[in-house]
Amino acid sequence: MKLSKRIENVHYSAVRSLSPYADRAVKAGKKIYHLNIGAPDVPVPDEYYETFENLERGPLPYAPSAGMPELREATSKYYKNRNINFEPEDIYITMGASEALMFTFQTIADDGDTVLTTNPFYTNYSTIFEQLDIEISAFPTDPDKGFAIPEEDAIENCVLDNTVAILLSNPTNPTGALYSREEIERIVNVAKRHNLYIVADEVYREFIYDDNDYTSFGEIDGIEENLILIDSISKRFGACGARVGSVASKNKEFLDGINKLCNCRLAAPTIEQLAASKLYGIDKDYFETVNKEYQRRRDVIYEELIAIPGVTVKKPKGAFYVMPKLPVDDTEKFAKWILEEFDVDGETVMFAPASGFFKDAEDGKQMVRIAFVLNEDAIRRSMKILRLGLEAYNSL
Amino acid sequence: MKLSKRIENVHYSAVRSLSPYADRAVKAGKKIYHLNIGAPDVPVPDEYYETFENLERGPLPYAPSAGMPELREATSKYYKNRNINFEPEDIYITMGASEALMFTFQTIADDGDTVLTTNPFYTNYSTIFEQLDIEISAFPTDPDKGFAIPEEDAIENCVLDNTVAILLSNPTNPTGALYSREEIERIVNVAKRHNLYIVADEVYREFIYDDNDYTSFGEIDGIEENLILIDSISKRFGACGARVGSVASKNKEFLDGINKLCNCRLAAPTIEQLAASKLYGIDKDYFETVNKEYQRRRDVIYEELIAIPGVTVKKPKGAFYVMPKLPVDDTEKFAKWILEEFDVDGETVMFAPASGFFKDAEDGKQMVRIAFVLNEDAIRRSMKILRLGLEAYNSL
Repeated sequence: MKLSKRIENVHYSAVRSLSPYADRAVKAGKKIYHLNIGAPDVPVPDEYYETFENLERGPLPYAPSAGMPELREATSKYYKNRNINFEPEDIYITMGASEALMFTFQTIADDGDTVLTTNPFYTNYSTIFEQLDIEISAFPTDPDKGFAIPEEDAIENCVLDNTVAILLSNPTNPTGALYSREEIERIVNVAKRHNLYIVADEVYREFIYDDNDYTSFGEIDGIEENLILIDSISKRFGACGARVGSVASKNKEFLDGINKLCNCRLAAPTIEQLAASKLYGIDKDYFETVNKEYQRRRDVIYEELIAIPGVTVKKPKGAFYVMPKLPVDDTEKFAKWILEEFDVDGETVMFAPASGFFKDAEDGKQMVRIAFVLNEDAIRRSMKILRLGLEAYNSL
Repeated sequence: MKLSKRIENVHYSAVRSLSPYADRAVKAGKKIYHLNIGAPDVPVPDEYYETFENLERGPLPYAPSAGMPELREATSKYYKNRNINFEPEDIYITMGASEALMFTFQTIADDGDTVLTTNPFYTNYSTIFEQLDIEISAFPTDPDKGFAIPEEDAIENCVLDNTVAILLSNPTNPTGALYSREEIERIVNVAKRHNLYIVADEVYREFIYDDNDYTSFGEIDGIEENLILIDSISKRFGACGARVGSVASKNKEFLDGINKLCNCRLAAPTIEQLAASKLYGIDKDYFETVNKEYQRRRDVIYEELIAIPGVTVKKPKGAFYVMPKLPVDDTEKFAKWILEEFDVDGETVMFAPASGFFKDAEDGKQMVRIAFVLNEDAIRRSMKILRLGLEAYNSL
């Protein structure tokens, strides 16, 4: 039977490609510390569960395609509290940031168009582009400078005739970089000069360490027609399994396209949206507590990583990822080996080889992405396993 | 700013295109009987809500991309109870049948390929095809014969060189037709002869009236490589807002494609899947009670419709739709008029003009799709409004 060329063009995400090796390790009785997926271990706030516990039974109708009014309203309020001026009607609710990104690129890019992003970038962007036959152009960011945004000309050099948008996450998956206002403005200048959309994936907005300032693209004036802001409750509230995200813009033609796509899939889940609307109203204290915990984990993992001989790494400033360089030739081989062939007292670690996060896989071959979503003890233990694993691997 | 050609190719679903007219009618203080959308008014069974009330609070991780094991297991059991032999690993959970259909056609069809379906067909199939640049080929079904499947040569005449699949719903949205085993076998014969996929949308499987037999494509031997079975809890359990569906097949290459797409969007909602797994285990008594209620509604709407002068209609045998021909030239104009210009004591009706369900809009211009998802009194009342509306419209 025929399969489509378009599906043959789609590959598994780098984050999940090691799953069969992990399955075998588990079958062999090993315990795995999962540093490979950014699934936070903090509890979802009670406000979320209270919605489920207090539901009125009855029929469960479709939500409006654009999203439940309560959630569009709550998201707007959340934004306005952060100097980001989106009205409820500027915001469309989606099934996670994944759907928001898919709908965005369906609306703004045709087959063969290019989207400019950072190198490295979040690997799941690729799987969306593969589905839509969109090419990636990527400007370099330097690991030795904490993966900061380069000067404007380095960005501009990568704008092609058929480039329609600049896409980036801030703080950044997969590197933990946090962009300053000045770095943000470099992106803005290039986008305005070339009439490009800015697709800003700010799902890690509340994970900022060392009391650094955060500048959202939504705070910048004069890019109302360019800006497409992506959001999600997954990381912020430990609610990955809810599948609630959104796309916001002031560009009416763009929103018309999003509205059509929202209509095509009828609606996002009704109850999850109601529960999410309570989360968007949560007090800033919540984020401070969570941030403190993640900052401690960030400190611990950094301290442990720099103590491993041959590892080089900069301290991440946001999100919950770090991308160290390891003293091996090919981290994908090493990642498989440590799952299959190695353990310390029956325990091993899983991380994401960085190749899948780079436009050219060679560039990331010695790096890995580590998500520090485990508690302090588990981080120390998994870093010990990594250190012993590297020693054993390099003495083979 | 640039918008993509692909988004300009996408149109609003015929079911929802009258929404602005309805909004204005509501603003003008009218009550609308909604016969336009197939959103059942029966309560979701308690088993569904019990899951919510007994949730353990904590982090809410991503479900496995392919679906929660509990739900794949429950769906498999449900199928096996109906002589449909799908193992849990043959079943992938999706966000409603909408996502199941989107993933299916992404996997089997390229730009410019054609899919063969019935004429008329469910209008939302079009919005999926528009997104994927797939063409529709449609074989005729005769309103005077209850929209039955025609003879094999009439189907075969519509198979083109680039046809990859036959897609149909049974029982049928938008006509309420129910296909006999013999009609099913005509489809099977053509599909086998031309090596086509059969995409069987059986979400209305449990809505069968007059003790008619039901034949699922899943019960037919020898089409294991061809068959793709689409399901959803939306209609069956009054749970449209849950957004839980599935796609099942024995074709391993096809499933590999589905698995890739499931991975790309990470996961379907975790809690909704757990709740849905309880629904799939529900006793057959539930369906009997619901069926009795819908059969009564079907009887009432049929009785009322044939009593309206100039209306022609056959009694539907399944699902909760009926597609009568009205004594007007253009039901879209009439549908707008009855919302905007007409009411009986402040009440009016909304239905879906049938043009949007036909490959050639002209073919459906005198027909409408009515969803009988209201209780008996509301149906009688709305049919009275329809009758008086037709009289008033035709005497203008």
